Amino acid sequence: MGTDVHELLGDEAESLLNHKAEAFPSDRLVLPGPDFIDRVFVSSDRPIAVLRNLQAMFGHGRLGGTGYLSILPVDQGIEHSAAASFSKNPAYFDPEAIVELALAADCSAVATTLGGLGIVARRYAHKIPFIVKLNHNELLTYPARPDQVPFGTVRQAVDLGAVAVGATIYFGSEESTRQLREVSEMFAEAHRAGLFTVLWCYLRNPAFSTPEADYDLSADLTGQANHLGVTIEADIVKQKQPVNNGGFTALKFGRTDPLVYDKLTTAHPIDLTRWQVVNCYAGRIALINSGGESKGASDLAQAVRTAVINKRAGGTGLIVGRKAFQRPMDDGVALINAVQDVFLDPTIQVA
Amino acid sequence: MGTDVHELLGDEAESLLNHKAEAFPSDRLVLPGPDFIDRVFVSSDRPIAVLRNLQAMFGHGRLGGTGYLSILPVDQGIEHSAAASFSKNPAYFDPEAIVELALAADCSAVATTLGGLGIVARRYAHKIPFIVKLNHNELLTYPARPDQVPFGTVRQAVDLGAVAVGATIYFGSEESTRQLREVSEMFAEAHRAGLFTVLWCYLRNPAFSTPEADYDLSADLTGQANHLGVTIEADIVKQKQPVNNGGFTALKFGRTDPLVYDKLTTAHPIDLTRWQVVNCYAGRIALINSGGESKGASDLAQAVRTAVINKRAGGTGLIVGRKAFQRPMDDGVALINAVQDVFLDPTIQVA
Amino acid sequence: MGTDVHELLGDEAESLLNHKAEAFPSDRLVLPGPDFIDRVFVSSDRPIAVLRNLQAMFGHGRLGGTGYLSILPVDQGIEHSAAASFSKNPAYFDPEAIVELALAADCSAVATTLGGLGIVARRYAHKIPFIVKLNHNELLTYPARPDQVPFGTVRQAVDLGAVAVGATIYFGSEESTRQLREVSEMFAEAHRAGLFTVLWCYLRNPAFSTPEADYDLSADLTGQANHLGVTIEADIVKQKQPVNNGGFTALKFGRTDPLVYDKLTTAHPIDLTRWQVVNCYAGRIALINSGGESKGASDLAQAVRTAVINKRAGGTGLIVGRKAFQRPMDDGVALINAVQDVFLDPTIQVA
Amino acid sequence: MGTDVHELLGDEAESLLNHKAEAFPSDRLVLPGPDFIDRVFVSSDRPIAVLRNLQAMFGHGRLGGTGYLSILPVDQGIEHSAAASFSKNPAYFDPEAIVELALAADCSAVATTLGGLGIVARRYAHKIPFIVKLNHNELLTYPARPDQVPFGTVRQAVDLGAVAVGATIYFGSEESTRQLREVSEMFAEAHRAGLFTVLWCYLRNPAFSTPEADYDLSADLTGQANHLGVTIEADIVKQKQPVNNGGFTALKFGRTDPLVYDKLTTAHPIDLTRWQVVNCYAGRIALINSGGESKGASDLAQAVRTAVINKRAGGTGLIVGRKAFQRPMDDGVALINAVQDVFLDPTIQVA
Amino acid sequence: MGTDVHELLGDEAESLLNHKAEAFPSDRLVLPGPDFIDRVFVSSDRPIAVLRNLQAMFGHGRLGGTGYLSILPVDQGIEHSAAASFSKNPAYFDPEAIVELALAADCSAVATTLGGLGIVARRYAHKIPFIVKLNHNELLTYPARPDQVPFGTVRQAVDLGAVAVGATIYFGSEESTRQLREVSEMFAEAHRAGLFTVLWCYLRNPAFSTPEADYDLSADLTGQANHLGVTIEADIVKQKQPVNNGGFTALKFGRTDPLVYDKLTTAHPIDLTRWQVVNCYAGRIALINSGGESKGASDLAQAVRTAVINKRAGGTGLIVGRKAFQRPMDDGVALINAVQDVFLDPTIQVA
Repeated sequence: MGTDVHELLGDEAESLLNHKAEAFPSDRLVLPGPDFIDRVFVSSDRPIAVLRNLQAMFGHGRLGGTGYLSILPVDQGIEHSAAASFSKNPAYFDPEAIVELALAADCSAVATTLGGLGIVARRYAHKIPFIVKLNHNELLTYPARPDQVPFGTVRQAVDLGAVAVGATIYFGSEESTRQLREVSEMFAEAHRAGLFTVLWCYLRNPAFSTPEADYDLSADLTGQANHLGVTIEADIVKQKQPVNNGGFTALKFGRTDPLVYDKLTTAHPIDLTRWQVVNCYAGRIALINSGGESKGASDLAQAVRTAVINKRAGGTGLIVGRKAFQRPMDDGVALINAVQDVFLDPTIQVA
Repeated sequence: MGTDVHELLGDEAESLLNHKAEAFPSDRLVLPGPDFIDRVFVSSDRPIAVLRNLQAMFGHGRLGGTGYLSILPVDQGIEHSAAASFSKNPAYFDPEAIVELALAADCSAVATTLGGLGIVARRYAHKIPFIVKLNHNELLTYPARPDQVPFGTVRQAVDLGAVAVGATIYFGSEESTRQLREVSEMFAEAHRAGLFTVLWCYLRNPAFSTPEADYDLSADLTGQANHLGVTIEADIVKQKQPVNNGGFTALKFGRTDPLVYDKLTTAHPIDLTRWQVVNCYAGRIALINSGGESKGASDLAQAVRTAVINKRAGGTGLIVGRKAFQRPMDDGVALINAVQDVFLDPTIQVA
Repeated sequence: MGTDVHELLGDEAESLLNHKAEAFPSDRLVLPGPDFIDRVFVSSDRPIAVLRNLQAMFGHGRLGGTGYLSILPVDQGIEHSAAASFSKNPAYFDPEAIVELALAADCSAVATTLGGLGIVARRYAHKIPFIVKLNHNELLTYPARPDQVPFGTVRQAVDLGAVAVGATIYFGSEESTRQLREVSEMFAEAHRAGLFTVLWCYLRNPAFSTPEADYDLSADLTGQANHLGVTIEADIVKQKQPVNNGGFTALKFGRTDPLVYDKLTTAHPIDLTRWQVVNCYAGRIALINSGGESKGASDLAQAVRTAVINKRAGGTGLIVGRKAFQRPMDDGVALINAVQDVFLDPTIQVA
Repeated sequence: MGTDVHELLGDEAESLLNHKAEAFPSDRLVLPGPDFIDRVFVSSDRPIAVLRNLQAMFGHGRLGGTGYLSILPVDQGIEHSAAASFSKNPAYFDPEAIVELALAADCSAVATTLGGLGIVARRYAHKIPFIVKLNHNELLTYPARPDQVPFGTVRQAVDLGAVAVGATIYFGSEESTRQLREVSEMFAEAHRAGLFTVLWCYLRNPAFSTPEADYDLSADLTGQANHLGVTIEADIVKQKQPVNNGGFTALKFGRTDPLVYDKLTTAHPIDLTRWQVVNCYAGRIALINSGGESKGASDLAQAVRTAVINKRAGGTGLIVGRKAFQRPMDDGVALINAVQDVFLDPTIQVA
Repeated sequence: MGTDVHELLGDEAESLLNHKAEAFPSDRLVLPGPDFIDRVFVSSDRPIAVLRNLQAMFGHGRLGGTGYLSILPVDQGIEHSAAASFSKNPAYFDPEAIVELALAADCSAVATTLGGLGIVARRYAHKIPFIVKLNHNELLTYPARPDQVPFGTVRQAVDLGAVAVGATIYFGSEESTRQLREVSEMFAEAHRAGLFTVLWCYLRNPAFSTPEADYDLSADLTGQANHLGVTIEADIVKQKQPVNNGGFTALKFGRTDPLVYDKLTTAHPIDLTRWQVVNCYAGRIALINSGGESKGASDLAQAVRTAVINKRAGGTGLIVGRKAFQRPMDDGVALINAVQDVFLDPTIQVA
């Protein structure tokens, strides 16, 4: 593996690679591993077909058999716009190119829209696990009205050969409880049909962005979003990596406990992300972090950093989209492979 | 049984242990007992499978066969936040620990969330009765909007092997009638599927808290909430123990009768709680009181006091959550066992 | 426990209590025990509700929690006639008396007909697990035509609160394959509805009774019947205890292997019964032996002998009907309790 | 009441009115009475609507509230032919007249065909309980082939406002097991739909009529037919009154017990009929006897005799058809009323 | 790879390894390969989920990704008897050992009975593809009546997490057309549910065994059986390897063409087997040959010979049961691995 993680991490290398997470020790967690399904899902209420589909993903691609995941997600064509998403590399206006990128990078799965997967499903669904993202926030309504709207159904996902459905909830928003009910029903139907469930478990409320900090990325608020997400039986929680803490106290709402800030977390990014893992039933539900937007040359270093933090915090991998598809395909593959290198690197362990 | 009830009750011991409830004598009530299902539910419209599931709970654990119940409830991870609930003993971020606590304390049942029970259902549903709390008030929406939202369905509860579903209604609130309809439909479906029903039968309206008193805890208002709850066929009513009376008259709304205050109740806590029992179809529907929040060292004495009042009033037991899980597991077990001791103590009888 | 097993076994005591089963050692078997469901059924395809119903039976009565079963079966009113079955103790013409006998003897479950359980279901289904025997061979058709006919459906068993359905197949007979299909479909429906399945796994063919021996009771033939029974997902196999071996070779049909007779079994009754256990997926499916017809004074000794053999062979208990109900109720209770004593006796272990 | 029972019984009066049934004493039976539904069906698996329909019949007409029944049955138009049945009083070719007869005689219910009830259902179903006889043996096929064929469905019975469905099984015949399955499924559907079930529980096999006796009317064989009938959840068993005993032994088939003949029955008609009651779950299922064919002038005495025997044996009433409708309506009413007089007569008690 | 194929083939090595199949050249066939699903099934009517399940098998185990298959089949416990099948290595009475053998030998899939897979499904269905053999010829009926009887349903196979169902048809027998209809319906349901289909495509008729030859193993008859099998949409045809030809002409039935014998086949075993491939839609449906019974020391050489012929003829692999499980597990693994070596050996190519 040619990725020089140490160099890419730069000044943070020491801190990120050697940090010992004593605020919430890893021995209290259920950690990723090749036997994760046996340790967790065999004991759960998920039907056997769900276990098989989870294993299909965990066994696929370059991270196959490690217990870690590398997923290519592309829903920005809806969430932002196709123009905004694909103009940097117009090949991806064709969804076949999206699937081909996931294959080229040897990802665990590809997660994209109903239409995008549907139009190439018969040629590819047996080559790489499909996750159908079923709801979206489309930006064409005027004026903009941030909301997640179902674009398809579980039955369509089943029919096109998917292993899972994905959905977003905007926790914190006015629409969150309606979305929660919609997604909960969708997930229940998916489980009965043998598909596992992936929750884009986001915070979204303008009030959460204050001059001091963007608490959409706060460890405590994202942690609680995760706790709500696993309660409706998400099997995989996708969450943005936290960059701060204390959202509850700064925004003066909800309930929390001083112990969170005094004892169970620190300001170290691994400890902040660990709090997200803790809130996924202490690791029983897999946490994957997202790569975030593409900023060009720094993307590789940024993605590797995110991967190191996720892995050492007890997470299960990354879902890297824009950083991968908003550049030439070879570069995208290289970036994804570098992220995978982190999860394959035996010298990088859970903190 | 090592619990020194007399000492724990302190100055109140005499009053609580020897009070004779003459305002509403117990011979007008259907009282708890080993044959409660035979005396009540055989004559009801509940399907036979509901009787079996009720008996599964009444026959389980340390209070098995007494007609009394000791339930471990954990839904504060949603209702408050996981951080606020579990930081004092972070083991409970893992729902397996919640079920293990209920087993260690030899409870009658464990009541928690869909996701929490689901992720360990196949290993535990045959070891201790599961009650799936299906709706919740999540505190992550901003600004806070107190409302109960369904997080799952009866069918999911059936599939994970539950004996019952639980739900909350905030009587008195603007959303109460919508909640009442939702929960009534949920309960009807649960009964048809063979599950019994537990109602968290709460009052919630800012106007109920006056400078004089918190009438959310008033005997007459909670009593009427109970009466509404049993009307939609709750099989178990969970209610906070009353601490005052006269909510209807103080708030000048609804309708009541002077006899309630002049003759049928007194200010004695056992008589106030008895009024709750009376409003549960004179005891045909089981009343369980909740333990309330954890305040540390006084919790044990407080829980035992609540138990004595509940038992002597004609109630069916306690549902003790935070006092039990917001401390080391051994202490939690000891606290729950002390509460059970009250219900096992033959010298403490219905007043 | 007052049962003097040693004395009741008489001359055979030494042989039955001290035999070491070296032909097929017990360490190759999955043996009964308090955690049987965890060791076997958690890994199976049975829904969680099936595990709960199995546990309801394994946890009930005097053998509750031991991993052994003591079941009262009464279907001879159909299989023979009510007159032939109940004249010795006419109280049992009333099915309530049958259920009361099972309760008095503290059995694990009562297995009888649809009508018999149905007419008292609402009063008793929550007091003792019900197994509805769904098909029968009625003897009123003239001339007699030995065949098993469904008298009811899985749905009726569900509605009356049963934990299981039972059915008979007459392996070896002309009708066996039709019965196998009927019962397989019934069992599949029962599992989906959350009920477990009990197979009366009989051999029946006039040709099997030769002047030399009644090969309906042959270890090899009954063993193969068991193997067919577990293939259609019986959860409990009820089989007559074998008294001989070599049915395949004597009758010159089917296929077998000389190793069965030369190495894997001996003529010892424990080894013959072990072969039945071996053929129940090496003990993964519970084998219960039947008590056989009532012969009066010798019944107690006979039942205890059957129990010792079953337990030491690796079986899961007895299902004793006629020996128990064709006498005064107190005597019947005593007989069943004596059988239970064998399974409770820590000095009697798997050979 | 003007019926001189003593005189009508003639020489048999002493024997029939004073017989003490010591072979099978009545204290072992569940006997008819005003609270029969409370004592039996409340404890059963029958839905509440079935209890209501049973009560509608038990509360209707001249025997209303006594626990006894007087039913007018007319299906001979199919079973024999309309010509054979109605030529003696052609008014009954019009089914309205049949219903009017039942009303005039103040019967508990009228039992006739789908078409007969259907054509007047809207005018009468609210005036007298309807029992729809759903299968029939029609005699127009050549050569005759005795078999019961469904002429209608439970749904049709529901739609025309019936309280019950009725059906015949010819036990002992080659077709009996097919009929048993058909009727069992019909009864299960009827119960789910809230209708109770009446079984014409007949024996029919040419071999049962020997030169010595017609064992179709044997106490032991009809008793066993009853036992099979209650097993498929008949709520009312209609059986011909027995005139002999020992069918099993004379025909050398099936299984019985010498105690039946030596101890539990005698040759006395009340004891023979009691054996039928015993085989109806010791009286938990109501036994009604039929009046048999019309023989003219002796019909009244014959019917009264049958009623006395039925009542004293522990039966629940008579179902008198041909004796009532094959004569002028007034005479028919008088005959039915005479039978009712027996059940109203406080001097005639269970033997 | 340590298998010395040349040595194991002995005298036949030259003939088998160098034969050029000119009678029916391979360029007229669709041949196995890593892209087999893309070349064949993408163009078919099979739903996408079927393609995924096929790929799950083709991608699994030691032959994963080669286009070849190595399947462990065990249904002889039913087809012969458990005793006859498992006495040589009694570990396999426990179905977990069967699945463990398939895992140890790194097979593509394991094919066994409903009950055998069901009892371990939740622990293993995500570890190795399951093929549920749904019908069987049980040998316990007396006298023997060779027929295939469904032991379970497609829905049960779906629920236990299978990738496929398997079934046998006895072509040539009296029951063949009934079996053909049953299996055709089963296969259609399987495809709709996303499972692929495996046909045990046997000839069976006593008349086919003549003093001259056993034409059950004739190339022309087995070829036609294959043609019938693919017509009902078998996705995999399992056939015994042919040892002769001319069944149609010798038995003087059916229709054939002299060209078959004169031009399109020779007596060479590869050409005979190629005829079977030709009759599987020219290779579009995969042909796997069975290993046949165990004969001890010669099994390895025999299995390797069968594999060489199958591969060079254009077949897709072997399904080796008895040769593998009727010996110590290590030896069984070694034998299966030797067969796999043939398919992995790049020097052995399609003739």
